[in-house]
Amino acid sequence: MQCFAICLVLISGATAARRNPTIKLPSALDGENLLCESWKQAVETNNAGPWGLPLPPCFGFAMSYMTGLRYLADSITVTNYALEFAKSVNVTGKDAWVFDVDDTLLSHVPHFFSPNQESRKLQERVKSEGWEEDSLLGGDEVELPALPASLELYRNIQKLGFKIFLLTGRKQSQLNQTVRNLLEVGYINWDRLILRDTCDYHKTALLYKSERRMELVEEGYTLHGNCGDQWSDLLGYAMAVRSFKLPNLMYYIK
Amino acid sequence: MQCFAICLVLISGATAARRNPTIKLPSALDGENLLCESWKQAVETNNAGPWGLPLPPCFGFAMSYMTGLRYLADSITVTNYALEFAKSVNVTGKDAWVFDVDDTLLSHVPHFFSPNQESRKLQERVKSEGWEEDSLLGGDEVELPALPASLELYRNIQKLGFKIFLLTGRKQSQLNQTVRNLLEVGYINWDRLILRDTCDYHKTALLYKSERRMELVEEGYTLHGNCGDQWSDLLGYAMAVRSFKLPNLMYYIK
Repeated sequence: MQCFAICLVLISGATAARRNPTIKLPSALDGENLLCESWKQAVETNNAGPWGLPLPPCFGFAMSYMTGLRYLADSITVTNYALEFAKSVNVTGKDAWVFDVDDTLLSHVPHFFSPNQESRKLQERVKSEGWEEDSLLGGDEVELPALPASLELYRNIQKLGFKIFLLTGRKQSQLNQTVRNLLEVGYINWDRLILRDTCDYHKTALLYKSERRMELVEEGYTLHGNCGDQWSDLLGYAMAVRSFKLPNLMYYIK
Repeated sequence: MQCFAICLVLISGATAARRNPTIKLPSALDGENLLCESWKQAVETNNAGPWGLPLPPCFGFAMSYMTGLRYLADSITVTNYALEFAKSVNVTGKDAWVFDVDDTLLSHVPHFFSPNQESRKLQERVKSEGWEEDSLLGGDEVELPALPASLELYRNIQKLGFKIFLLTGRKQSQLNQTVRNLLEVGYINWDRLILRDTCDYHKTALLYKSERRMELVEEGYTLHGNCGDQWSDLLGYAMAVRSFKLPNLMYYIK
């Protein structure tokens, strides 16, 4: 290795971390940035496994990322790769594409990171109870904006002739609000919107979404692409031919 | 969104990219860095799918990343998360951990990015033929160094009592050289080293590795962790409870 002395420092930091039950990232060398970049990579690759709110020293980093250019650039990059793949498919009547809804088609970013009291309450709730896909949507009439790159991709996937299935962790009781929000920001003419039934409430998103994808496969659909901001949107069984992980440094759903 | 005008610029760049069969990343806004950071994220999350050498404008970025502190920090972060998970397992005689070899336990980084003629020849070969796990090891007596974070993790996993299975795309003909290299840099006492038989040559790494993991599961082992630098080390079937993706911006293996 070119930087043997530095390796030793890093390794010795790692050894110290292993005596500590919480994850200690190498932080002494390049300040918060190196630490938080590594945390981001661990989150986005699913190496971090289940996590709550962003690591305390990385909360500012996460906010800056999610509200800035990098999130936009990363989202556009994912959707560019997705579209390139979609164009390679010879689409027939049973060729399908799956989209998650929250933080895939619709964005919580402005609510999660706004400087007001509601945002802090939401963060506290996520911290103590984890994220629920109805976190922001209880009785409120909150309208979430579209993610621009996702809306563009959605329209292009539709033009290519894919069946579009929206598979969300939201509950049937949120159907009307969800439909209204999707339509208002430009998502139209999907083929099916799948929400949790009461019998799904106790299931992890990973299981619930795998089961519903399997039903689609059993109906004869080929799931070519699947777009989601959570690994639980993408992994499990009846996986799509290609999965596209949109970035999310706000929360984790099992 | 906070930066509506900028969103439009990015989206319009994305639209242009869609008329072009190759991936065009948003590049005009923040120079190479934004573009290459997005490319890195797409590669590490498997959003990019199969790719050859680093995108031409990102070759310098990839070299700088892989030979610098960020690669070390990211590797240590992965192995920290892996060890934290490993410690949570109540280990018995059938609890196992899988490691890939090339660019998981042993590193090609010094060879791939050295400024000499051999390195350029290797890059050209990868560009035209793709990466083979014997790319550097044909008849040569090349000794690859250990990845420091992986060596540390390997020793800790061993101390915790896991069975250790090394599952590599290298061929049986490379057995002696592989064993010698592993031992020389400090990897000892693994339980099994699995290499490709002749009947595996035509298979993708994804299929070959899935088949071999399935054999281990059928022998009664629980595969708790799996460490690899390629998604083809980790996905497929008989997946481990937790997969840990080590970074690699040098090449992609199907």
